[in-house]
Order: sequence, then C-alpha cells, then structure tokens
Amino acid sequence: MATTTTTTRPTESDARREIGALIAEFAAATGAKDPDRVMALFAPNDVQFILAPPLQYDRGHPWGRAALAAWFDTFDGPLTIDVRDPTIFAGGDVAFAHYLGCLSARSLQGEDFSLWHRMTLGLRRIDGRWRIAHVHQSVPFEMDGSFQAAVGLEP
Amino acid sequence: MATTTTTTRPTESDARREIGALIAEFAAATGAKDPDRVMALFAPNDVQFILAPPLQYDRGHPWGRAALAAWFDTFDGPLTIDVRDPTIFAGGDVAFAHYLGCLSARSLQGEDFSLWHRMTLGLRRIDGRWRIAHVHQSVPFEMDGSFQAAVGLEP
Repeated sequence: MATTTTTTRPTESDARREIGALIAEFAAATGAKDPDRVMALFAPNDVQFILAPPLQYDRGHPWGRAALAAWFDTFDGPLTIDVRDPTIFAGGDVAFAHYLGCLSARSLQGEDFSLWHRMTLGLRRIDGRWRIAHVHQSVPFEMDGSFQAAVGLEP
Repeated sequence: MATTTTTTRPTESDARREIGALIAEFAAATGAKDPDRVMALFAPNDVQFILAPPLQYDRGHPWGRAALAAWFDTFDGPLTIDVRDPTIFAGGDVAFAHYLGCLSARSLQGEDFSLWHRMTLGLRRIDGRWRIAHVHQSVPFEMDGSFQAAVGLEP
C-alpha cells in the first residue's frame, strides 16, 4: 500500500555531509580513546558486530562504556584511524555507509601495528541528529583451511 | 538546507515486508546454488565485503557470476542458509538490515559443517524494487594472539 506524504526533510547532500562528519568524529573520538565521545554517537538499542567475539553485542551488553575504556587501555598512547572514501546512501531518516578503515596503534608491549578492516554503518536520524544504529567491523579469513584472520591485507 | 517535497512512497512496513522477502530469496537462491537468481538481487555498482579475501569486491570484480558459480561448486549438494530474525530499517529508497545467518553445507570431501556468521545489507529501491547495494558478511577473530577466525561461534 502506498501513501502520499508531505514532509520537510534534509536533502540527501545534507545527509551525506552530516554522516561524513559523524564518521570523522567516530574516528577522532576512537583515536583519542574517549569512550564518552564514542558512545555519544550511537543510537539507543544499537547492535554491533565487531572484530572480537562474540558474534553480536547488543546495547547495554559488554560493548558499553566500561568495555570500550578497557579496550582503549590495551594500547600505549593514542590510536590513529584512517577512513578511506566512505560511500554513503541516505533516504529520509535512514542511511548506510561503508568504507575501509585502518587502525594504527602501539601495543602495551611497544609493538606498532596497522590493521586494515571493513566498516559498515547503519544510521538513523533521531531528533534531527544522525546516530549509529548498527556497526559491522571485520577482516576476512583465509580459505586455505587455516581459518586465519587476514590481518595483513591492504586495499 | 531543507526542502519540502511531496512524494508517493511505500510505507516503512511495506519496505520491511519487501526487504524481508528479498532476504529470504537471497538465502533460498544461495541454498539452491543458482548464481543468476543471486545476482538478480544486487544493484549495479554494489560493493561486497565477504568472508574470503580480499577486503573488498567491487561489482564486475571477481564476485561476478563465474566466481559465485565456482564457489558453489566447492560444495557437495545444496546449501542451507538459516536467517535469524532480521532487523530492518527503511527510509524512502534507502534501507539497511542486519542478522545472524548460518550456512550449513557438505564439502566435496564429504564433511558436514555449519558456520554462524554476521550479515549486514545496505539496500536501495531502484525502479520500485529493493536491491542489495552492499553486503558485509563476516565472523570475528580471536584476540588471544592466534588471529584465528572464530568459526565455531553460536548465537
């Protein structure tokens, strides 16, 4: 069934610009290891698929502020998150974005590393502000029988 | 800048129902190992993050019909794809969906296996029909230094 509606809403270019800024802030807040800044970007009841098990984190579940802060504490100094050319599609109050990202960091053991990974965001505009309702972050794994995560890939 | 537009478009419940049907067809077409049925569900210029390297497949790149057919040929008999409670958000002509899926299959060596994984779809309604513009499929990996893909997880 189709309905006819008259709505005042931002243009898609507005949405793309706002979501681009949100992605930049997500990277900057993660880089600064500031859990409150990161958490402020998420919608209530967000669902996260992150690099580490389990399969899924629901809001209020371990990927809360404390878990995020504990993860940040596993690195020496700030993180660098590079975001490569996000693709963004927005329609009304729903959007999705995907990009490749690179996390560069120093471990507590003093080892520098970089990890290219895939990022997909599902976004909702709530009270006029875009928020992350879903994040999916991953690397692929080798199909040679080793089941090794492919942590050395580059775009 | 905001614009005022008058549009005739499906309700969000229509969109959820149509996208739910698309997800069921994606699972059924994959289970039937029918590359044409699978490919018909995708938008032009889709971008795929799948279980196997590389990080990203662009449309026309290896995850084309031939690659999909070759992957299907690595299994003995049909596949079973279970889809667990998709979450779907739609706004206008853009939507995203996420769910946990389980691939059950028999290898050419006669070994049965099941693989729970995470699925995120970015969708666009093109010419009145929802299509998959982006898919992200993954399992997490162990953070114990082994970098093993976590292929034995269950929800």
